[in-house]
Amino acid sequence: MRKILLTGFAPFGAEKTNPSWDAVQVLDGQMIDDARIISLQLPSEFDVCLQVLEDAMRAHQPEVVLSLGQAGGRADITVERVAININDARIPDNIGQQPIDTPVAEHGPVGYFSSLPIKAIVQALRQHGIPASVSHTAGTYVCNHVFYGLMHLLPNHPSVKRAGFVHVPYTPDQAAAHPGAASMAVTTMTAAIRLMLETTLHTAHDIHVSGGITH
Amino acid sequence: MRKILLTGFAPFGAEKTNPSWDAVQVLDGQMIDDARIISLQLPSEFDVCLQVLEDAMRAHQPEVVLSLGQAGGRADITVERVAININDARIPDNIGQQPIDTPVAEHGPVGYFSSLPIKAIVQALRQHGIPASVSHTAGTYVCNHVFYGLMHLLPNHPSVKRAGFVHVPYTPDQAAAHPGAASMAVTTMTAAIRLMLETTLHTAHDIHVSGGITH
Amino acid sequence: MRKILLTGFAPFGAEKTNPSWDAVQVLDGQMIDDARIISLQLPSEFDVCLQVLEDAMRAHQPEVVLSLGQAGGRADITVERVAININDARIPDNIGQQPIDTPVAEHGPVGYFSSLPIKAIVQALRQHGIPASVSHTAGTYVCNHVFYGLMHLLPNHPSVKRAGFVHVPYTPDQAAAHPGAASMAVTTMTAAIRLMLETTLHTAHDIHVSGGITH
Amino acid sequence: MRKILLTGFAPFGAEKTNPSWDAVQVLDGQMIDDARIISLQLPSEFDVCLQVLEDAMRAHQPEVVLSLGQAGGRADITVERVAININDARIPDNIGQQPIDTPVAEHGPVGYFSSLPIKAIVQALRQHGIPASVSHTAGTYVCNHVFYGLMHLLPNHPSVKRAGFVHVPYTPDQAAAHPGAASMAVTTMTAAIRLMLETTLHTAHDIHVSGGITH
Repeated sequence: MRKILLTGFAPFGAEKTNPSWDAVQVLDGQMIDDARIISLQLPSEFDVCLQVLEDAMRAHQPEVVLSLGQAGGRADITVERVAININDARIPDNIGQQPIDTPVAEHGPVGYFSSLPIKAIVQALRQHGIPASVSHTAGTYVCNHVFYGLMHLLPNHPSVKRAGFVHVPYTPDQAAAHPGAASMAVTTMTAAIRLMLETTLHTAHDIHVSGGITH
Repeated sequence: MRKILLTGFAPFGAEKTNPSWDAVQVLDGQMIDDARIISLQLPSEFDVCLQVLEDAMRAHQPEVVLSLGQAGGRADITVERVAININDARIPDNIGQQPIDTPVAEHGPVGYFSSLPIKAIVQALRQHGIPASVSHTAGTYVCNHVFYGLMHLLPNHPSVKRAGFVHVPYTPDQAAAHPGAASMAVTTMTAAIRLMLETTLHTAHDIHVSGGITH
Repeated sequence: MRKILLTGFAPFGAEKTNPSWDAVQVLDGQMIDDARIISLQLPSEFDVCLQVLEDAMRAHQPEVVLSLGQAGGRADITVERVAININDARIPDNIGQQPIDTPVAEHGPVGYFSSLPIKAIVQALRQHGIPASVSHTAGTYVCNHVFYGLMHLLPNHPSVKRAGFVHVPYTPDQAAAHPGAASMAVTTMTAAIRLMLETTLHTAHDIHVSGGITH
Repeated sequence: MRKILLTGFAPFGAEKTNPSWDAVQVLDGQMIDDARIISLQLPSEFDVCLQVLEDAMRAHQPEVVLSLGQAGGRADITVERVAININDARIPDNIGQQPIDTPVAEHGPVGYFSSLPIKAIVQALRQHGIPASVSHTAGTYVCNHVFYGLMHLLPNHPSVKRAGFVHVPYTPDQAAAHPGAASMAVTTMTAAIRLMLETTLHTAHDIHVSGGITH
């Protein structure tokens, strides 16, 4: 059976929830075409999260891996274009690790591009009334760490044909404690994830439209 | 019977919908305690909107009047503190009027403060997980025009005990066409409006907490 | 002799300098046409600042009073349109006062409009390559307090023909401690102040261009 | 003689000037320690700019190459950490080219990290009162194109020991036409460039402080 591995993170910092997990959790067991979704929570901990991810990849041999994380302050769903080989933590992770300027993978390349059809995904989301854009940095914290680590694992997991990372905004409940911060309903995020997965399964070659930024 | 007059605006500019009306419309006929909500759409037209508003106030003799408008780009529900006696339109309204530096009311005072319990409202919304804050400018377009005009009408409408204005963000559907813009689900706005009205009915004196800004 | 009273504030909060005073200080004694500038530092203290201001107005009988304050985070010079009769301090002032929802002046009107030619000033600054815009809120802290108090004093100071308030951004030195914050060179602010004063002296009636905002 | 190659761009889009060139131009011929600065204007044109850059590198055999570009809207000096192998132009360049999702270098790696001491540079700038931060995306336009192309050229230019890219804000003159946009005086940018070069020459190993972002 075709499988899709979907990951969200455990809460980190001062937050009690993580919208990426809130949105991913409810999709566990659902089908996209004939592919079953497996939802997995990753710990917000450097290195440990990659072990948990790799174990799940080995166990499930998914065709698609989509990881999601929280981007508190961003207003829309941001489809990440590139992961970079650096850990530079502004705050400690959930077990107190705070790496500065270390590589995610020793001897790994500087970066990996997403293999999701990022432009087609953004277009599909907007057409369905969900705010979205391409992002050119996934940061240097646990989110980028998982994104890079995921792409770096792929040569050993040939079942995976497409993989990438997406950031979601705060939930309204979180934003209520951060005056002025943007938010998005979890139901909208969940609908967005289904659309992203459908678009990924149905798009062999990404579309030719600009998603770029001058700086 | 106690009545609450709730107003939202018609779409303006390039928008096809107006979230203030989307959120207000569904509450028509609903009860807050023993007060019935009357939902009214105002035209996004200087002066005309105030005639429509006054007609409804005369017809319904409401106890509370809450007007809402769209604040595209703002991330949370903003409870306006003050209306000012100026029209200064950056873009024409729906019938082509573009007043610059004219008064809303000839010989009217410079401003009116909201008579809603604005601090209690913000606190209640946040406690229910809805992002909200006090705002110190309702702009100089049709929203401020209605807010000022509403307060200026009150001496002739003694049924009205509390009145004020609240801005709501774009809907996700609107924000999908404005990359990077924040949004809020209409259902969240509607829930917020019910909470604002309950808080208004239940709060005789506003609470003593800061909602201020240094500039 | 014609006189112009120019005020800036003492540093407040965690700041060691205040750009409004940095920019104002160097103009003391300079001439605009045949009017001499008197530069005055106001304490960042509710009520006390107004006593200092009134003493100087009584002593100098200026024709123009222009007060300036720091708006940390704003990117351009913002010419304030309106002062409101409220104190709502998010942080204590320099002597520990933190009024919440008190009036600046008991029984004073809700607001006062600037009597500066605010549109002509913004136009002149932009034409000289200095970023500027009209602002519709001076906040609810000491800046708005001085702006409101200044306008409220005018009936007792008939020498004053024009008065208003302008906010300036952080200096680069301040912004270096606030990552991501905008700033402006003090020399640019000082040049801007001279331009504002010249424009004020030379403009009998403000120009008819929009400086408004939709919200 | 030791040489430093410093590049800025020609104006692009609707701008008549480019702050990167304004700031770089005046340093031509100046010395940093015993190294002479050579200032070079690059055309804002894909591919052509890299030919001009390579010609200059071949001619001068510099020890350090620092390229700068305009980041309209950013508030501080942003020291770029990473270049990526993608061109994705939102607007055409100065000769009408608008590549979408093409590589800067066929078969090139996904990215290159700056070899400047980016953390030490940010620290030095802040200590001298100049707003600065590390940036994790140089965009996908001509700036990233030059940054990537520069790093990709290095194996053929062994004289170059350190190279990287820095973005500068609008000048006040530019920002005056973009209401609300941040700016920085050209003299501050020029002082910043000298500091960056001194720090580069004096820092063998970058300092160990976080410059990271959670997303």
